[in-house]
Amino acid sequence: MTDFPITPRNQVRRLPQRAAYDRDTIYAIVDAVPFCHVAFIRARQPYIIPINHARQDDRLFFHGSPHSRLLQHIHAGEPVSMAVTLLDGLVLARSIFEHSVNYRSALLFGRGRLLDDPAEKMGALRLISEHILPGRWDDVRQPSPKELNATAVAVIEIESASAKTRQGMPVDLPEDLDLPVWAGVLPLAQGYAAPLPDDHTSASMPVPDYIQRLL
Amino acid sequence: MTDFPITPRNQVRRLPQRAAYDRDTIYAIVDAVPFCHVAFIRARQPYIIPINHARQDDRLFFHGSPHSRLLQHIHAGEPVSMAVTLLDGLVLARSIFEHSVNYRSALLFGRGRLLDDPAEKMGALRLISEHILPGRWDDVRQPSPKELNATAVAVIEIESASAKTRQGMPVDLPEDLDLPVWAGVLPLAQGYAAPLPDDHTSASMPVPDYIQRLL
Repeated sequence: MTDFPITPRNQVRRLPQRAAYDRDTIYAIVDAVPFCHVAFIRARQPYIIPINHARQDDRLFFHGSPHSRLLQHIHAGEPVSMAVTLLDGLVLARSIFEHSVNYRSALLFGRGRLLDDPAEKMGALRLISEHILPGRWDDVRQPSPKELNATAVAVIEIESASAKTRQGMPVDLPEDLDLPVWAGVLPLAQGYAAPLPDDHTSASMPVPDYIQRLL
Repeated sequence: MTDFPITPRNQVRRLPQRAAYDRDTIYAIVDAVPFCHVAFIRARQPYIIPINHARQDDRLFFHGSPHSRLLQHIHAGEPVSMAVTLLDGLVLARSIFEHSVNYRSALLFGRGRLLDDPAEKMGALRLISEHILPGRWDDVRQPSPKELNATAVAVIEIESASAKTRQGMPVDLPEDLDLPVWAGVLPLAQGYAAPLPDDHTSASMPVPDYIQRLL
């Protein structure tokens, strides 16, 4: 896929060798996790909110209450930034100075609007649900007209973006290599633990396949 | 510990029953993970950066390059916001509408400055290192005067903050309880995987105790 143009807004200034501007790299990070952080400005104060998201082409979708400050802000056409961050491990060098972290980080910029059309809203909600837990949507009761009405859905047009990543082993100074210190990477692992049924789920009901395959 | 006053800046407007303003709740979240997201404003555009942090009393510490845009911004006395977010699990209800996530989220507001004094900088770096991996600092070569000089350290005075949390099982509509759907919580688990030594670490060198005890 094509690159986002490098502009003052998305240019990575520190450690530019870790930067990427192509959609493949950026969207692989965006699609790897079910939630991101959104920043917006209100009364000259920056705010951040964690939120579930889904992506399709150059669009991000969020949902929330129609009274949500963030969604009202998006509806007003104000600029937002989105960060998607995966911490992959601690990079343990022989000197404090060369310690680092392995990570994959995407930063996106855009503006958006709230969706009006019920069919469009339903499609976006399905996209978000399927991004979080594929298979769940078709297994449960889908939104009633009243529930759909009580849900605001925002679409953000991604105008600009960049990624920054670090992977691999520590890079020590040559003169530190003989220090008697264990050095390497301590990988971070995220995953699901055993599912906990609620009190109304019968003990004989099997855990659905679309959950089992994540464990 | 005492509460932060509720003001328009830190007031949780959506689902206020999930809000908390006491330092115990907020700082337990801040201290539970080694990194946060920081938002700041530049040319009327919100930015977000993921960064390692440590806390002491009502102060947050960051470090980075003296050329970092964020640290220069902090040095100029501009307002920043910090979000610390832990995703604890997916809350799987019998209707899409009642789906949720279990989470612990803290949002902090403040302004800061860069530290000048080498001893203060060294103390803050030790705090950050010990927050990420307790025990590492004393095991490796500590910063030389030149390395300390090449590191900027910022302190943020936390002026205002709030927390928002959700825990527990889904809450379904009574009329949905008989739907033949598995409902409950799918917990998210984060932890460390087996450490990977680098090429200069001898195979006979044991993994340090302060790493072993995290596995």
